[in-house]
Amino acid sequence: MERRLDQDLNRIRQSLLRMAGTVEEMVARATQALLDRNAELQREVVRQDREVDQMEIDIDEACHSVLSRKQPAAGDLRFLVAVMKINSDLERIGDSAVNIAHSVEPLLAQAPLPTRVDLPLLSQRVQEMVRDSLNAFVRRDARLASAVLASDDEVDGLYRQIFRELLTAMIEDPTTVTRALHLLLIARNFERIADHATNVAEDVIYFVEGKDVRHPSAETR
Amino acid sequence: MERRLDQDLNRIRQSLLRMAGTVEEMVARATQALLDRNAELQREVVRQDREVDQMEIDIDEACHSVLSRKQPAAGDLRFLVAVMKINSDLERIGDSAVNIAHSVEPLLAQAPLPTRVDLPLLSQRVQEMVRDSLNAFVRRDARLASAVLASDDEVDGLYRQIFRELLTAMIEDPTTVTRALHLLLIARNFERIADHATNVAEDVIYFVEGKDVRHPSAETR
Repeated sequence: MERRLDQDLNRIRQSLLRMAGTVEEMVARATQALLDRNAELQREVVRQDREVDQMEIDIDEACHSVLSRKQPAAGDLRFLVAVMKINSDLERIGDSAVNIAHSVEPLLAQAPLPTRVDLPLLSQRVQEMVRDSLNAFVRRDARLASAVLASDDEVDGLYRQIFRELLTAMIEDPTTVTRALHLLLIARNFERIADHATNVAEDVIYFVEGKDVRHPSAETR
Repeated sequence: MERRLDQDLNRIRQSLLRMAGTVEEMVARATQALLDRNAELQREVVRQDREVDQMEIDIDEACHSVLSRKQPAAGDLRFLVAVMKINSDLERIGDSAVNIAHSVEPLLAQAPLPTRVDLPLLSQRVQEMVRDSLNAFVRRDARLASAVLASDDEVDGLYRQIFRELLTAMIEDPTTVTRALHLLLIARNFERIADHATNVAEDVIYFVEGKDVRHPSAETR
């Protein structure tokens, strides 16, 4: 018979994955709202954020409840700590998706920029990082989590390239300033989502291997 | 005689306050680096970030260790959970201070903008929020923590005003674009620091009163 604690942990795991599914959908919809200039999708993202906020509270409460009622041992404890951290990162990914959706709003009625910046590629890479970090959690796959850490450099490079292109557009043609600025804030939010996916991947490695891989520079000083 | 657990908790509390002191100094120095166009202070902020990264790891490990070795009861458990969350927010405040310091770099050799935007006021309000949220933690003062939540609206208003002023400057005078953009990213990072101070204040209320005040809209749906 399954331990009662295992049932509790499994329920928490399922809640976290449900939240992850919603958050991934929010990022995909915010991207689609931008590409299609779609106001309906944009509102949907804002609506989902309220669901995610409630999920975050519920998952945190479930973790506290298990921590205070049972005495989870090393592995279960690492799992709960990882869940609480991933929970917080997922909620912030949702917030970034909302920020993107809000930045889409002033763009809805405007013509695309003359400069083409590769926001679709940035969004795609970032969504892959989010998906891989969550798959790594589900499969307890530290190697996949490490691959996510490596992807963050590519995303940073894409972001810097988009930043330069938008800056050039703004300087060369002042009529692009407002639009370019909103696109830049959107790019910035994708880059932040990648940072949160990186945090999730680090938490997975801690959970699977019991070691902390954050801030490698801090460790080698 | 003091309980052994109390000694552990007290050591963790002291470590967190030491980290908080360093992070507050980073924000103050990043601001001063901007106002004085001071490259030395800017480098100092980057150096301190490595210390803060290590402090975050050490505090997390100390919390895990107490959680796994002792069975902390309700109040102590809430304290430890609050510390782990505040720890994470402090580290991210440090990251934002580093982002500000990095944005100062390209401004060092440039003339100030013709438009005057009130970044000093924004920074001052944000630093007050950080300080008050930490004082609320030290004094277990839920009322002070609530006041921090209220301040966040003022900071959001200041940020939006600065955003509009810089946007206007960029549109009216393309030679300001690069500088205005860096100032905008700086303002955005101050606004994020305020969000983290808000998170800390929410954690303090949870810790003191045992209730979750995050996402009020989620609760009243």
